[in-house]
Amino acid sequence: MAEEEKNVETKEESGDAANTVFVGKKGVMSYVLAVVTQFNKGAKEVNIKARGKTISRAVDVAEIIKNKFINEVKVKNISIQTEELKNADGTTSKVSAIDIVLSK
Amino acid sequence: MAEEEKNVETKEESGDAANTVFVGKKGVMSYVLAVVTQFNKGAKEVNIKARGKTISRAVDVAEIIKNKFINEVKVKNISIQTEELKNADGTTSKVSAIDIVLSK
Repeated sequence: MAEEEKNVETKEESGDAANTVFVGKKGVMSYVLAVVTQFNKGAKEVNIKARGKTISRAVDVAEIIKNKFINEVKVKNISIQTEELKNADGTTSKVSAIDIVLSK
Repeated sequence: MAEEEKNVETKEESGDAANTVFVGKKGVMSYVLAVVTQFNKGAKEVNIKARGKTISRAVDVAEIIKNKFINEVKVKNISIQTEELKNADGTTSKVSAIDIVLSK
């Protein structure tokens, strides 16, 4: 389980992570800070992505930014998907994912 | 914590729960069945609601219904909010919430 999560994060970091914050197992405020930093660097939109149990944390991140940090930020779109993850033993697992687009 | 969760469920059950499934701590399939039952009874739309850590389970429920049970079901809208819960000691806690609207 821990290994699966690690794979996920690595994959995201090597992807086109411009203006995307991938929410994992760290504290909520780490991701809030990451998103606020993107906006302060001039981003007009930031995607917050999460998979599995961290989905609820992604929603917390979006709500905290909207309500406490940047009032002008709006939730532009929210989409949910099912993604397939390859396990270390070659099998695949399905996991739900969320993509929250915040815009300024 | 357990008491807080209980309050939440009671509140929902006494509200206008028509076509609404509130996702709590039971297994995912309990809620999938509840939603499928609503559609089979003729509902055109079903709201799936959740708060806090059960938000990720609500996303699982929506994805499982869409991908495995009723192909014609689409995600019509997803919204997120912050809700205030009253604790037993009179203090309030803020908690994120999600509302996923499925339509047939």
